[in-house]
Amino acid sequence: MNDRFLRACRREPVDCTPIWLMRQAGRYMEAYRQLRERYTTMQLVKTPELAVQITLQPIRAFELDAAIIYSDILPPLEAMGLEVEFLDSEGPVIRNPLRHQDDVKALREPDPRESLHFVLQAIHLARLELDGRVPLIGFAGAPFTLATYAIEGGSSRHLIRTKTVMYREPETWYLLMQRLARFLGLYLQAQVEAGAQALQLFDSWVGALSPADYDRYVAPYSQHVIQTVQATGVPVIHFSTGTGGMVERIAAAGGDVIAVDWRVHLEDAWRRIGYDRAVQGNLDPSVLLGPPEELTRQTMLILKQVANRPGHIFNLGHGVLPQTPVEAVARLVEIVHEKSQR
Amino acid sequence: MNDRFLRACRREPVDCTPIWLMRQAGRYMEAYRQLRERYTTMQLVKTPELAVQITLQPIRAFELDAAIIYSDILPPLEAMGLEVEFLDSEGPVIRNPLRHQDDVKALREPDPRESLHFVLQAIHLARLELDGRVPLIGFAGAPFTLATYAIEGGSSRHLIRTKTVMYREPETWYLLMQRLARFLGLYLQAQVEAGAQALQLFDSWVGALSPADYDRYVAPYSQHVIQTVQATGVPVIHFSTGTGGMVERIAAAGGDVIAVDWRVHLEDAWRRIGYDRAVQGNLDPSVLLGPPEELTRQTMLILKQVANRPGHIFNLGHGVLPQTPVEAVARLVEIVHEKSQR
Repeated sequence: MNDRFLRACRREPVDCTPIWLMRQAGRYMEAYRQLRERYTTMQLVKTPELAVQITLQPIRAFELDAAIIYSDILPPLEAMGLEVEFLDSEGPVIRNPLRHQDDVKALREPDPRESLHFVLQAIHLARLELDGRVPLIGFAGAPFTLATYAIEGGSSRHLIRTKTVMYREPETWYLLMQRLARFLGLYLQAQVEAGAQALQLFDSWVGALSPADYDRYVAPYSQHVIQTVQATGVPVIHFSTGTGGMVERIAAAGGDVIAVDWRVHLEDAWRRIGYDRAVQGNLDPSVLLGPPEELTRQTMLILKQVANRPGHIFNLGHGVLPQTPVEAVARLVEIVHEKSQR
Repeated sequence: MNDRFLRACRREPVDCTPIWLMRQAGRYMEAYRQLRERYTTMQLVKTPELAVQITLQPIRAFELDAAIIYSDILPPLEAMGLEVEFLDSEGPVIRNPLRHQDDVKALREPDPRESLHFVLQAIHLARLELDGRVPLIGFAGAPFTLATYAIEGGSSRHLIRTKTVMYREPETWYLLMQRLARFLGLYLQAQVEAGAQALQLFDSWVGALSPADYDRYVAPYSQHVIQTVQATGVPVIHFSTGTGGMVERIAAAGGDVIAVDWRVHLEDAWRRIGYDRAVQGNLDPSVLLGPPEELTRQTMLILKQVANRPGHIFNLGHGVLPQTPVEAVARLVEIVHEKSQR
């Protein structure tokens, strides 16, 4: 059993740096594109056998050190009563976004073991299929990031509706964040019961906030989710993007591993986060579109920054881009393992 | 003559903190919207009398401490041979984006005193009209930000084409950056000759890069522009967004004043930048959409962070949003002046 990834989460010595990639199962792989021709994203997410098949695709193709369950961050919002739809042209759309405090009060909090059974079943089956080859990561969106979808009704550049609720209706905001944090905590606990060996909390949009707003309006709720989950004993990766100005505050909200994007120098970030945490990152995904020499050079730069300190998990700063050549992914995995040998 | 702004640029003591706002002339003002009903952005930019009128609108409406010439960052690209068009729906579009090294070689570098005469004439007339009331700021886009427009053909989320040129065709990239830096240096010098009393270099998209890529592919060219301009003796404000992870590198590339967005704690940023520079910022523009108490609270937070250290210019972290109520702008200017009195 390859336990490099879990050892790195606990900052234990490893034979070489573990690597996995956000969106390692995705459009850049022919096998995934073939499935997407026949099924919508939500069909794939809701059919455990297919989700497992996709989860395993990159594990079979590359020497990755962890699998992450194929799913999406929006099913919990659907379980809570929002109508989620994926439009290929513009990403996810929510048909009945939250507009009033009553909409927040009307949100449901059904037992995730029933309402999100398809995710838990996929985790259970993926563990069987992986058969100990590499650990399996479960995940959820963080309360803030899910709140933006619920309020904006989809992706949004400036998150103006979200911030307007925060500033103008703090009671509505706090109520929404409380309910999301509670439900997400239970959902992630259920993922651990189903077999997830580590969890990643995706706070993808929180980089839109000032550090002061993060501390006041967001951190306590991320902290609630992380503490709920840490009670199960599995490591939690706390991921965000665009937060180079406040990595220490992200770390203060919790997480065994702090995942940063490429907009910050990894060793600078680690110093600010504190060496009592592991770090994950942080190659710019677009470097995989460049020539092999540039990929090698930039990968080496990151490995040198952290100088083999235990507790580094190599990853991109965000998901694999759809136009990425599979050879580049294979090469990256090889370089990381080879050049980080202790 | 109100010289608070220029004194703060030089880190000299002031009676209270100076304030101006990016996009202080813009859609949130009724007078501007009326002009935009009759003219396109480019017509306004290219008609000095109208550009001056717009430049003065916010100075007449609020007690701002500096004016910034009404213009756009794209006219220099047009002067160099690119066909720029503004579509209200999707922002600027370039009809003949750069695709090959030959396209870069074919760029023109005409004397900005002729090719961009309309901007210089607007600056000249605005100085007359301002009559010493407040200083006038000129500006240009930074080489990187203009390169992204020239290559992507418009705004772009991931800047994939731009980064692909950087990584795959470094010679083409360096040639483009050299030519942009040279032309922008001359353009900004011409703005000073025309009467600009300070200059702001807008590197709006550079936050998409890793610190290592910034140092290698961008910093030398921003540095060239800034050094060229500093030879004239006017202060240069170096602005970027999304660079909370690398403010010290932005500062290393130059600038008398380093302008940061709201994604970083201002005093943290200043410490990293060094107290031998002035700083500008950094309220989240969306706070102006909130209630008065929240605006006061957040403005006070920023003022307290820098604790009246000479060399702080108050501004937003990015431009005024179109939906901003004018009363909020008036209130902000008042709070900053009142609460920062020495």
